Amino acid sequence: MAGTDSTQLDGLPDGGPVIILVKPQLGQNIGMVARAMLNNGLAELRLVAPRDGWPNPEAVASAAGADRVIDNAQVFETTADAVADLQRVYATTARPRDMVGRVLTPRTAGREFLEVHKAGNRYGVLFGGERAGLDNEDVTLADNIIEAPLNPSFRSLNLAQAVLLISYEWYQNRIEVPEERFQVGDSDLAGKDELLNFLTRLEASLDKGGFFKSPNLRPVTVRNIRNMFQRASLTSQEVRTLHGIAEALRRAGRLE
Amino acid sequence: MAGTDSTQLDGLPDGGPVIILVKPQLGQNIGMVARAMLNNGLAELRLVAPRDGWPNPEAVASAAGADRVIDNAQVFETTADAVADLQRVYATTARPRDMVGRVLTPRTAGREFLEVHKAGNRYGVLFGGERAGLDNEDVTLADNIIEAPLNPSFRSLNLAQAVLLISYEWYQNRIEVPEERFQVGDSDLAGKDELLNFLTRLEASLDKGGFFKSPNLRPVTVRNIRNMFQRASLTSQEVRTLHGIAEALRRAGRLE
Repeated sequence: MAGTDSTQLDGLPDGGPVIILVKPQLGQNIGMVARAMLNNGLAELRLVAPRDGWPNPEAVASAAGADRVIDNAQVFETTADAVADLQRVYATTARPRDMVGRVLTPRTAGREFLEVHKAGNRYGVLFGGERAGLDNEDVTLADNIIEAPLNPSFRSLNLAQAVLLISYEWYQNRIEVPEERFQVGDSDLAGKDELLNFLTRLEASLDKGGFFKSPNLRPVTVRNIRNMFQRASLTSQEVRTLHGIAEALRRAGRLE
Repeated sequence: MAGTDSTQLDGLPDGGPVIILVKPQLGQNIGMVARAMLNNGLAELRLVAPRDGWPNPEAVASAAGADRVIDNAQVFETTADAVADLQRVYATTARPRDMVGRVLTPRTAGREFLEVHKAGNRYGVLFGGERAGLDNEDVTLADNIIEAPLNPSFRSLNLAQAVLLISYEWYQNRIEVPEERFQVGDSDLAGKDELLNFLTRLEASLDKGGFFKSPNLRPVTVRNIRNMFQRASLTSQEVRTLHGIAEALRRAGRLE
């Protein structure tokens, strides 16, 4: 069933959670929720009994361009109606509950979402209103609880922030992304020959300029200098710039 | 040096990043930043040339109780002033830059933060204003770039959302938290003897009530029933409730 719903929009990864806001109060927050969802490739928003009715112009204003999420939002009278077609439901809460069950971190939930989707199930995440969060009755509709490990003395997240964390953990797990990359802009990384050519010329100038106080220490000093430039992961353009700098310094000396 | 600054407040983990907002515009967003920081155990906020001056009553209103962060915020005229006492600086950006250098995910950065702190270094993260993000000049002050992998066609995060992701990744890495726990509320998990006692009595009643159509199939049906209750990770209280339910069903039958 996953991937066949009408809100599966072009360019977004399929299989994400349905985001369900239960009795949200401020249109501004609903808009910020929509923005946080689309930031993380989610587009299916459901609203249970929004206090100020629907549609809500304030939601559109604060969605900052995530209109497709706002336009596609579905409204339900009860939480039970909003989850009726789902096979799995998660409840988010910052407050300890008497309820017995698994309590997941957002990160663990993000991983589990992908498994639930791969098993062919549709699923959603319940978020309570700004004032009091979810009722116990709403939590009872859920299979599991998601609780973000936050500062114990200041746990309460803004509604859109709570949606962001869940959406973000989903998306980070959904896409494959390197932990780190090296950005070189318009230039390419310098070949070792380019770097060595620069260093050799530099060291010749340093010899000439009396930089090395002792022949004994020259090798270790050269090694340290080479390491410093090596570590900078220079581009071809930057090596050319360094040649220019060295030449300009020599020229300045000739003119003194 | 880490841990000795004046904003190291009681109960918060030490060694977190200084959060630096460069030319922030809306007081409301600054307040939401403060809230997101304190949610994740951070309390050191710096502001570079905030558009509407400082202090800003709107920031206090939207901080939702994170007053300690607002009260301790420091204001600087330039970004260079704001980072002067730091040994490492990270710049957050959603826009591709010509700058050459390492680009980290928030998650990788969260791990690196801890290493930077353990090495005795103070560090901060730069966030640009709402409209245009960081200037190239600001980015040049940074050692590395942090870029959240987000929906390529809708990348722009709200300022407080951007701060939340960085703060969250720091805190998740800083604290030790189990990926999942099983919450039992006021009761304890049932011992296997309690569960087995219930199941044995249930099966006796099922025999009596003619539930098992075929003696051949009885063992596999019993196994499926036992698995279903086993899977539910019942508490002692819940097992007692199940005894009561079975008894009530038998009683209802007697009264028919």
